[in-house]
Amino acid sequence: MAKRIAVMLAEGFEEIETVTVVDILRRAGGRVSLISLFDNTESVKGSRGVYFVPDSGISVLSDADFDAIVLPGGLPGTTNLHADKTVKDTLLRMNSDGKLIASICAATSILADYGITSGKNATSHPAFKEQTDINDTIYSDERVVVDGNIVTSRSPGTAMEFAFALVEQLYGSEMVEKVNAGVLARL
Amino acid sequence: MAKRIAVMLAEGFEEIETVTVVDILRRAGGRVSLISLFDNTESVKGSRGVYFVPDSGISVLSDADFDAIVLPGGLPGTTNLHADKTVKDTLLRMNSDGKLIASICAATSILADYGITSGKNATSHPAFKEQTDINDTIYSDERVVVDGNIVTSRSPGTAMEFAFALVEQLYGSEMVEKVNAGVLARL
Repeated sequence: MAKRIAVMLAEGFEEIETVTVVDILRRAGGRVSLISLFDNTESVKGSRGVYFVPDSGISVLSDADFDAIVLPGGLPGTTNLHADKTVKDTLLRMNSDGKLIASICAATSILADYGITSGKNATSHPAFKEQTDINDTIYSDERVVVDGNIVTSRSPGTAMEFAFALVEQLYGSEMVEKVNAGVLARL
Repeated sequence: MAKRIAVMLAEGFEEIETVTVVDILRRAGGRVSLISLFDNTESVKGSRGVYFVPDSGISVLSDADFDAIVLPGGLPGTTNLHADKTVKDTLLRMNSDGKLIASICAATSILADYGITSGKNATSHPAFKEQTDINDTIYSDERVVVDGNIVTSRSPGTAMEFAFALVEQLYGSEMVEKVNAGVLARL
Protein backbone atom coordinates (compact mmCIF):
# COMPACT_ATOMS: atom_id res chain seq x y z
CA MET A 1 0.00 0.00 0.00
CA ALA A 2 1.29 3.46 -0.87
CA LYS A 3 2.74 5.45 1.99
CA ARG A 4 0.67 8.46 3.03
CA ILE A 5 2.37 11.79 3.59
CA ALA A 6 0.73 14.90 5.01
CA VAL A 7 2.15 18.22 3.81
CA MET A 8 0.63 21.14 5.68
CA LEU A 9 -0.51 24.18 3.69
CA ALA A 10 -0.92 27.28 5.86
CA GLU A 11 -1.39 30.78 4.49
CA GLY A 12 2.10 32.18 3.94
CA PHE A 13 3.72 28.80 3.13
CA GLU A 14 7.04 28.98 1.28
CA GLU A 15 6.17 27.84 -2.24
CA ILE A 16 9.44 26.13 -3.23
CA GLU A 17 9.72 24.28 0.08
CA THR A 18 6.15 23.05 -0.22
CA VAL A 19 5.95 21.99 -3.84
CA THR A 20 9.38 20.39 -4.01
CA VAL A 21 8.43 17.93 -1.28
CA VAL A 22 5.07 17.12 -2.85
CA ASP A 23 6.46 16.69 -6.36
CA ILE A 24 9.48 14.54 -5.44
CA LEU A 25 7.52 12.32 -3.02
CA ARG A 26 4.80 11.75 -5.63
CA ARG A 27 7.49 10.77 -8.15
CA ALA A 28 8.63 8.18 -5.56
CA GLY A 29 5.08 6.79 -5.37
CA GLY A 30 3.96 8.52 -2.19
CA ARG A 31 0.30 9.30 -1.62
CA VAL A 32 0.82 12.93 -0.67
CA SER A 33 -1.93 15.19 0.65
CA LEU A 34 -1.58 18.96 0.71
CA ILE A 35 -3.68 19.82 3.75
CA SER A 36 -5.34 23.15 4.50
CA LEU A 37 -5.62 24.43 8.08
CA PHE A 38 -9.31 24.95 7.38
CA ASP A 39 -11.97 22.33 6.80
CA ASN A 40 -12.25 23.11 3.11
CA THR A 41 -10.14 23.05 -0.03
CA GLU A 42 -10.16 26.73 -0.89
CA SER A 43 -6.91 27.97 -2.40
CA VAL A 44 -4.21 29.13 0.01
CA LYS A 45 -1.79 32.01 -0.61
CA GLY A 46 1.94 31.40 -0.34
CA SER A 47 4.62 33.72 1.02
CA ARG A 48 5.49 34.88 -2.54
CA GLY A 49 1.88 35.24 -3.61
CA VAL A 50 1.31 31.94 -5.43
CA TYR A 51 -2.01 30.28 -4.59
CA PHE A 52 -2.06 26.47 -4.26
CA VAL A 53 -5.24 24.42 -3.99
CA PRO A 54 -5.10 21.95 -1.08
CA ASP A 55 -6.13 18.31 -1.55
CA SER A 56 -7.93 18.06 1.79
CA GLY A 57 -9.29 20.02 4.68
CA ILE A 58 -7.67 19.57 8.09
CA SER A 59 -10.08 16.87 9.33
CA VAL A 60 -8.13 14.33 7.26
CA LEU A 61 -5.37 14.56 9.90
CA SER A 62 -7.60 12.69 12.37
CA ASP A 63 -9.48 10.59 9.81
CA ALA A 64 -6.46 9.06 8.03
CA ASP A 65 -3.28 7.30 9.07
CA PHE A 66 -0.21 9.12 7.82
CA ASP A 67 3.29 7.66 7.65
CA ALA A 68 4.88 11.10 7.64
CA ILE A 69 4.05 14.75 8.17
CA VAL A 70 5.94 17.67 6.66
CA LEU A 71 5.89 21.31 7.81
CA PRO A 72 7.07 23.72 5.11
CA GLY A 73 8.48 27.07 6.25
CA GLY A 74 7.66 30.55 5.09
CA LEU A 75 6.06 33.49 6.85
CA PRO A 76 3.40 33.86 8.05
CA GLY A 77 2.95 30.16 7.22
CA THR A 78 5.08 29.08 10.16
CA THR A 79 3.20 31.37 12.55
CA ASN A 80 -0.11 29.95 11.30
CA LEU A 81 1.06 26.33 11.65
CA HIS A 82 2.37 27.10 15.13
CA ALA A 83 -0.99 28.50 16.23
CA ASP A 84 -2.98 25.44 15.07
CA LYS A 85 -4.07 23.03 17.82
CA THR A 86 -4.82 20.12 15.44
CA VAL A 87 -1.33 20.39 13.95
CA LYS A 88 0.17 20.37 17.45
CA ASP A 89 -1.86 17.34 18.57
CA THR A 90 -1.03 15.48 15.34
CA LEU A 91 2.70 16.19 15.64
CA LEU A 92 2.80 14.99 19.27
CA ARG A 93 0.79 11.84 18.49
CA MET A 94 2.80 10.96 15.38
CA ASN A 95 6.05 11.60 17.25
CA SER A 96 5.12 9.22 20.06
CA ASP A 97 4.15 6.67 17.41
CA GLY A 98 7.65 7.08 15.90
CA LYS A 99 6.30 8.35 12.57
CA LEU A 100 8.46 10.48 10.30
CA ILE A 101 8.25 14.18 11.17
CA ALA A 102 9.92 16.71 8.90
CA SER A 103 10.28 20.48 8.86
CA ILE A 104 12.23 23.03 6.89
CA CYS A 105 13.24 26.66 7.32
CA ALA A 106 11.40 28.56 10.07
CA ALA A 107 9.09 25.59 10.75
CA THR A 108 11.67 23.63 12.75
CA SER A 109 11.11 26.21 15.49
CA ILE A 110 7.64 24.68 15.96
CA LEU A 111 9.08 21.20 16.58
CA ALA A 112 11.61 22.70 19.00
CA ASP A 113 8.89 24.53 20.91
CA TYR A 114 6.91 21.29 21.31
CA GLY A 115 10.00 19.41 22.55
CA ILE A 116 9.97 17.10 19.51
CA THR A 117 13.62 17.90 18.74
CA SER A 118 14.73 17.68 22.40
CA GLY A 119 18.02 15.78 22.59
CA LYS A 120 18.06 15.50 18.80
CA ASN A 121 20.13 17.11 16.06
CA ALA A 122 18.10 19.50 13.96
CA THR A 123 18.45 22.54 11.75
CA SER A 124 16.38 25.52 10.61
CA HIS A 125 16.82 28.68 8.58
CA PRO A 126 19.78 30.52 10.13
CA ALA A 127 17.45 33.47 10.82
CA PHE A 128 15.41 31.14 13.08
CA LYS A 129 18.34 29.66 15.00
CA GLU A 130 17.44 31.47 18.22
CA GLN A 131 13.83 30.21 18.18
CA THR A 132 14.97 26.66 17.32
CA ASP A 133 17.99 26.23 19.59
CA ILE A 134 15.74 25.68 22.63
CA ASN A 135 14.46 22.77 24.75
CA ASP A 136 17.77 20.86 24.40
CA THR A 137 17.64 20.79 20.61
CA ILE A 138 21.16 20.06 19.34
CA TYR A 139 21.35 22.80 16.70
CA SER A 140 23.16 21.94 13.48
CA ASP A 141 24.31 24.09 10.55
CA GLU A 142 24.06 21.20 8.05
CA ARG A 143 21.75 21.62 5.04
CA VAL A 144 19.69 18.53 5.94
CA VAL A 145 19.73 16.70 9.26
CA VAL A 146 18.27 13.24 9.90
CA ASP A 147 18.06 12.13 13.54
CA GLY A 148 15.83 9.14 14.21
CA ASN A 149 12.33 9.98 13.00
CA ILE A 150 13.08 13.70 12.63
CA VAL A 151 14.27 15.23 9.34
CA THR A 152 14.99 18.96 9.22
CA SER A 153 16.39 21.41 6.71
CA ARG A 154 17.12 25.11 6.15
CA SER A 155 15.62 27.03 3.23
CA PRO A 156 14.17 27.04 -0.29
CA GLY A 157 17.72 26.40 -1.54
CA THR A 158 17.94 23.15 0.45
CA ALA A 159 14.39 21.98 -0.37
CA MET A 160 15.50 19.55 -3.09
CA GLU A 161 18.03 17.84 -0.80
CA PHE A 162 15.37 17.77 1.94
CA ALA A 163 12.82 16.14 -0.37
CA PHE A 164 15.28 13.45 -1.41
CA ALA A 165 16.22 12.83 2.24
CA LEU A 166 12.52 12.11 2.83
CA VAL A 167 12.49 9.73 -0.16
CA GLU A 168 15.50 7.94 1.31
CA GLN A 169 13.89 7.61 4.75
CA LEU A 170 10.57 6.36 3.35
CA TYR A 171 11.71 4.32 0.33
CA GLY A 172 15.48 3.79 0.54
CA SER A 173 18.44 4.94 -1.53
CA GLU A 174 17.56 2.96 -4.66
CA MET A 175 14.39 5.03 -5.01
CA VAL A 176 16.45 8.20 -4.63
CA GLU A 177 18.55 7.14 -7.62
CA LYS A 178 15.51 6.08 -9.61
CA VAL A 179 13.66 9.38 -9.09
CA ASN A 180 16.75 11.49 -9.59
CA ALA A 181 17.50 9.85 -12.96
CA GLY A 182 14.81 12.19 -14.35
CA VAL A 183 15.07 15.06 -11.87
CA LEU A 184 18.85 15.62 -12.22
CA ALA A 185 19.33 17.20 -8.81
CA ARG A 186 22.85 17.66 -7.44
CA LEU A 187 22.60 15.64 -4.23
CA MET B 1 9.70 50.48 -12.76
CA ALA B 2 9.59 46.80 -11.85
CA LYS B 3 10.44 44.39 -14.64
CA ARG B 4 7.52 42.31 -15.84
CA ILE B 5 7.97 38.59 -16.32
CA ALA B 6 5.42 36.23 -17.89
CA VAL B 7 5.50 32.64 -16.63
CA MET B 8 3.18 30.43 -18.64
CA LEU B 9 0.92 28.01 -16.76
CA ALA B 10 -0.44 25.23 -18.99
CA GLU B 11 -2.20 22.13 -17.70
CA GLY B 12 0.53 19.60 -16.93
CA PHE B 13 3.16 22.20 -15.97
CA GLU B 14 6.08 20.90 -13.92
CA GLU B 15 5.44 22.30 -10.44
CA ILE B 16 9.03 22.76 -9.22
CA GLU B 17 10.16 24.34 -12.48
CA THR B 18 7.25 26.77 -12.39
CA VAL B 19 7.18 27.87 -8.79
CA THR B 20 10.95 28.17 -8.36
CA VAL B 21 11.13 30.76 -11.12
CA VAL B 22 8.15 32.73 -9.77
CA ASP B 23 9.37 32.68 -6.16
CA ILE B 24 13.01 33.61 -6.87
CA LEU B 25 12.14 36.34 -9.39
CA ARG B 26 9.62 37.87 -6.96
CA ARG B 27 12.30 37.87 -4.25
CA ALA B 28 14.45 39.85 -6.73
CA GLY B 29 11.66 42.42 -7.13
CA GLY B 30 10.21 41.14 -10.41
CA ARG B 31 6.57 41.71 -11.24
CA VAL B 32 5.83 38.12 -12.19
CA SER B 33 2.55 36.96 -13.72
CA LEU B 34 1.55 33.31 -13.79
CA ILE B 35 -0.51 33.21 -16.98
CA SER B 36 -3.19 30.67 -17.88
CA LEU B 37 -3.66 29.53 -21.48
CA PHE B 38 -7.35 30.35 -21.04
CA ASP B 39 -8.92 33.74 -20.61
CA ASN B 40 -9.71 33.17 -16.96
CA THR B 41 -7.93 32.52 -13.68
CA GLU B 42 -9.32 29.08 -12.87
CA SER B 43 -6.81 26.79 -11.16
CA VAL B 44 -4.55 24.73 -13.41
CA LYS B 45 -3.35 21.18 -12.65
CA GLY B 46 0.36 20.44 -12.66
CA SER B 47 2.14 17.31 -13.86
CA ARG B 48 2.29 15.96 -10.27
CA GLY B 49 -1.27 16.91 -9.44
CA VAL B 50 -0.76 20.22 -7.64
CA TYR B 51 -3.22 22.93 -8.67
CA PHE B 52 -1.90 26.51 -8.95
CA VAL B 53 -4.11 29.55 -9.41
CA PRO B 54 -2.90 31.78 -12.28
CA ASP B 55 -2.62 35.55 -11.83
CA SER B 56 -3.99 36.38 -15.29
CA GLY B 57 -5.75 35.00 -18.29
CA ILE B 58 -3.85 34.79 -21.57
CA SER B 59 -5.06 38.15 -22.94
CA VAL B 60 -2.49 39.87 -20.71
CA LEU B 61 0.18 38.67 -23.17
CA SER B 62 -1.08 41.15 -25.75
CA ASP B 63 -2.27 43.80 -23.28
CA ALA B 64 0.98 44.20 -21.30
CA ASP B 65 4.64 44.71 -22.10
CA PHE B 66 6.79 41.96 -20.67
CA ASP B 67 10.56 42.08 -20.25
CA ALA B 68 10.82 38.30 -20.18
CA ILE B 69 8.79 35.16 -20.81
CA VAL B 70 9.41 31.78 -19.21
CA LEU B 71 8.17 28.39 -20.41
CA PRO B 72 8.24 25.74 -17.66
CA GLY B 73 8.43 22.11 -18.74
CA GLY B 74 6.37 19.13 -17.68
CA LEU B 75 3.95 16.95 -19.58
CA PRO B 76 1.42 17.51 -20.97
CA GLY B 77 2.26 21.14 -20.11
CA THR B 78 4.82 21.37 -22.89
CA THR B 79 2.42 19.88 -25.43
CA ASN B 80 -0.24 22.39 -24.39
CA LEU B 81 2.15 25.36 -24.63
CA HIS B 82 3.34 24.13 -28.02
CA ALA B 83 -0.23 24.00 -29.36
CA ASP B 84 -1.07 27.56 -28.30
CA LYS B 85 -1.05 30.17 -31.07
CA THR B 86 -0.89 33.19 -28.72
CA VAL B 87 2.17 31.71 -27.01
CA LYS B 88 3.79 31.17 -30.40
CA ASP B 89 3.05 34.71 -31.61
CA THR B 90 4.27 36.19 -28.31
CA LEU B 91 7.52 34.21 -28.38
CA LEU B 92 8.29 35.25 -31.97
CA ARG B 93 7.45 38.90 -31.27
CA MET B 94 9.45 39.06 -28.02
CA ASN B 95 12.38 37.30 -29.67
CA SER B 96 12.54 39.80 -32.53
CA ASP B 97 12.36 42.57 -29.89
CA GLY B 98 15.38 40.97 -28.18
CA LYS B 99 13.46 40.32 -24.96
CA LEU B 100 14.57 37.58 -22.58
CA ILE B 101 13.11 34.18 -23.51
CA ALA B 102 13.62 31.25 -21.17
CA SER B 103 12.62 27.60 -21.16
CA ILE B 104 13.40 24.55 -19.08
CA CYS B 105 13.09 20.79 -19.49
CA ALA B 106 10.90 19.63 -22.39
CA ALA B 107 9.83 23.22 -23.18
CA THR B 108 13.07 24.12 -24.98
CA SER B 109 11.83 21.86 -27.80
CA ILE B 110 9.16 24.52 -28.46
CA LEU B 111 11.78 27.26 -28.94
CA ALA B 112 13.76 24.93 -31.20
CA ASP B 113 10.70 24.16 -33.32
CA TYR B 114 10.02 27.88 -33.80
CA GLY B 115 13.66 28.52 -34.80
CA ILE B 116 14.24 30.74 -31.75
CA THR B 117 17.32 28.72 -30.75
CA SER B 118 18.68 28.49 -34.32
CA GLY B 119 22.43 29.10 -34.27
CA LYS B 120 22.33 29.38 -30.48
CA ASN B 121 23.50 27.17 -27.64
CA ALA B 122 20.61 25.68 -25.71
CA THR B 123 19.71 22.74 -23.51
CA SER B 124 16.64 20.69 -22.57
CA HIS B 125 15.80 17.63 -20.54
CA PRO B 126 18.03 14.83 -21.90
CA ALA B 127 14.86 12.89 -22.79
CA PHE B 128 13.92 15.76 -25.16
CA LYS B 129 17.31 16.07 -26.83
CA GLU B 130 16.04 14.67 -30.14
CA GLN B 131 13.12 17.13 -30.33
CA THR B 132 15.38 20.06 -29.35
CA ASP B 133 18.49 19.37 -31.40
CA ILE B 134 16.81 20.66 -34.58
CA ASN B 135 16.79 23.80 -36.76
CA ASP B 136 20.52 24.41 -36.14
CA THR B 137 20.18 24.57 -32.37
CA ILE B 138 23.64 24.01 -30.85
CA TYR B 139 22.66 21.42 -28.26
CA SER B 140 24.44 21.62 -24.91
CA ASP B 141 24.55 19.24 -21.93
CA GLU B 142 25.16 22.05 -19.43
CA ARG B 143 22.66 22.53 -16.58
CA VAL B 144 21.90 26.13 -17.58
CA VAL B 145 22.81 27.79 -20.87
CA VAL B 146 22.72 31.54 -21.56
CA ASP B 147 23.14 32.61 -25.18
CA GLY B 148 22.17 36.18 -25.98
CA ASN B 149 18.53 36.65 -25.01
CA ILE B 150 17.87 32.91 -24.63
CA VAL B 151 18.23 31.10 -21.29
CA THR B 152 17.57 27.35 -21.17
CA SER B 153 17.85 24.59 -18.61
CA ARG B 154 17.17 20.88 -18.04
CA SER B 155 14.91 19.66 -15.26
CA PRO B 156 13.33 20.20 -11.83
CA GLY B 157 16.78 19.56 -10.36
CA THR B 158 18.26 22.50 -12.27
CA ALA B 159 15.32 24.86 -11.68
CA MET B 160 17.01 26.78 -8.87
CA GLU B 161 20.14 27.44 -10.95
CA PHE B 162 17.86 28.42 -13.87
CA ALA B 163 15.91 30.88 -11.70
CA PHE B 164 19.09 32.53 -10.47
CA ALA B 165 20.41 32.74 -14.05
CA LEU B 166 17.26 34.71 -14.87
CA VAL B 167 17.87 36.98 -11.86
CA GLU B 168 21.41 37.56 -13.10
CA GLN B 169 20.26 38.41 -16.64
CA LEU B 170 17.52 40.76 -15.46
CA TYR B 171 19.09 42.30 -12.34
CA GLY B 172 22.81 41.46 -12.27
CA SER B 173 25.03 39.38 -10.04
CA GLU B 174 24.70 41.56 -6.95
CA MET B 175 21.00 40.76 -6.84
CA VAL B 176 21.81 37.05 -7.13
CA GLU B 177 23.94 37.34 -4.00
CA LYS B 178 21.35 39.43 -2.19
CA VAL B 179 18.50 37.00 -2.87
CA ASN B 180 20.59 33.93 -2.19
CA ALA B 181 21.65 35.25 1.22
CA GLY B 182 18.24 34.03 2.41
CA VAL B 183 17.61 31.23 -0.07
CA LEU B 184 20.92 29.38 0.51
CA ALA B 185 21.04 27.67 -2.89
CA ARG B 186 24.25 25.97 -4.02
CA LEU B 187 24.98 27.93 -7.18
